[in-house]
Amino acid sequence: MSENPITQVMLNRKSIRRYSHQPVSDEIIHAIVSAGQQAPFASQLYSVLLSRKKRHAFGAPLLFTICIDAYKISRIMEKRNWKIVSNDLTLLLFGIQDATLMAENMVIAAESFGLGSCFLGAAPYMAEKIAKQYKLPPRVFPLVQLVMGYPAENPSPRPRYPLEFTLFEDEYPELTDEMIERAMKQMDEGYIAQGYYRKGKIRIPLENDRPETYTYDNYSWTEHISRKWGQWHRSLEEILNQLEIRGFCLSRAERN
Amino acid sequence: MSENPITQVMLNRKSIRRYSHQPVSDEIIHAIVSAGQQAPFASQLYSVLLSRKKRHAFGAPLLFTICIDAYKISRIMEKRNWKIVSNDLTLLLFGIQDATLMAENMVIAAESFGLGSCFLGAAPYMAEKIAKQYKLPPRVFPLVQLVMGYPAENPSPRPRYPLEFTLFEDEYPELTDEMIERAMKQMDEGYIAQGYYRKGKIRIPLENDRPETYTYDNYSWTEHISRKWGQWHRSLEEILNQLEIRGFCLSRAERN
Repeated sequence: MSENPITQVMLNRKSIRRYSHQPVSDEIIHAIVSAGQQAPFASQLYSVLLSRKKRHAFGAPLLFTICIDAYKISRIMEKRNWKIVSNDLTLLLFGIQDATLMAENMVIAAESFGLGSCFLGAAPYMAEKIAKQYKLPPRVFPLVQLVMGYPAENPSPRPRYPLEFTLFEDEYPELTDEMIERAMKQMDEGYIAQGYYRKGKIRIPLENDRPETYTYDNYSWTEHISRKWGQWHRSLEEILNQLEIRGFCLSRAERN
Repeated sequence: MSENPITQVMLNRKSIRRYSHQPVSDEIIHAIVSAGQQAPFASQLYSVLLSRKKRHAFGAPLLFTICIDAYKISRIMEKRNWKIVSNDLTLLLFGIQDATLMAENMVIAAESFGLGSCFLGAAPYMAEKIAKQYKLPPRVFPLVQLVMGYPAENPSPRPRYPLEFTLFEDEYPELTDEMIERAMKQMDEGYIAQGYYRKGKIRIPLENDRPETYTYDNYSWTEHISRKWGQWHRSLEEILNQLEIRGFCLSRAERN
């Protein structure tokens, strides 16, 4: 396969869950954020909050909170005698993309300086709390957090679906049982061979007193992901409420 | 500022709106998608559709349609006797992120091989049509399209907000009028100096017969963005309907 120094860095990326004490200079932080800023945004609907007063998850020196930001643009539009009339779902659809483009660019830029990072996905469910902590204005929603620092571990890149399960030409093919099983096998055997769940002591408990029948010998990626989407976040209310507290309304009734 | 060959490529990125006839090899396409695949996904909730039978927007030889994909994971979960119980908004929140992480990684990987790209943002509003074209199964939603190819133009990177308007430490500051105006000035003077709207003959018409008072001498980024969010996509129904047609329901009423 064709490679170059940049795709090599991308192919070698993995989430880092142990960090050294080496501090990260302001200069490197600014370089990472500046590189992030050149992503192909819809409308720069994002802001980045940094916390480095203490060590964060996995001992990381830096915690970035990447937010969807509809506040800055409304302040700008106000100066031009405009106001936002677009519906909030559309605004969020582009805001999530802008914030994620920024986050991924920061991940790659960090790798290029020898730093590692790891996404923490719980921010949307703690939006109200995070908003208080960082004094976020209305219409700024914390989408994802990113810890960053110099790595104190060097795991292998994690398995991914086969290319045939990712890239489709002209039409989405009928996914045969064989294709599904090949994708599952590549993910599951890969994660088990790396001892990912065993080393991290990561296993999502079964709810409703269902007895555990898996050990770290067979607890795998597809089992892990199944337990997430098969058990978690049943409530639409929870996430709608967090969005509403932050000033985004997706409800038909309240709009009509 | 600290730089390296990777951040230099990132800082030099700009959307390309004119492409050469040079074809892109399968090998390069696979390398770009493979590099994309190592992004830090929540659950690989995405698929990439490629079309290259004809030339696409801006004469680009490649058109990628990057989709949120909750279908593949449901097929996998079925094989493990699980089904998705998480609410669709949560699923979309992570699906949009996964698809965007992929898209941005592909943008950077493309740059590293000397290719250019440009996002087309209208896909969510044409979801039903795109789904028919590519025979997308239910619960696959086209988030963004990306044209790609060898560039036949080399514009300067586009202006961005100042760092002081993007990165905040410990708390979101009160944004003073001076900060807002500095950010506007940097964007507006930068775009006008590059002749971006003039060269592209890009100007969003004013609705409701409001008379045009701007020329390409003063039509700027903040004016352009104000006309988007101040006029477009008023209807929540339109985007909710596209999501519902594709099998995603965000409505409280229908859930309760």
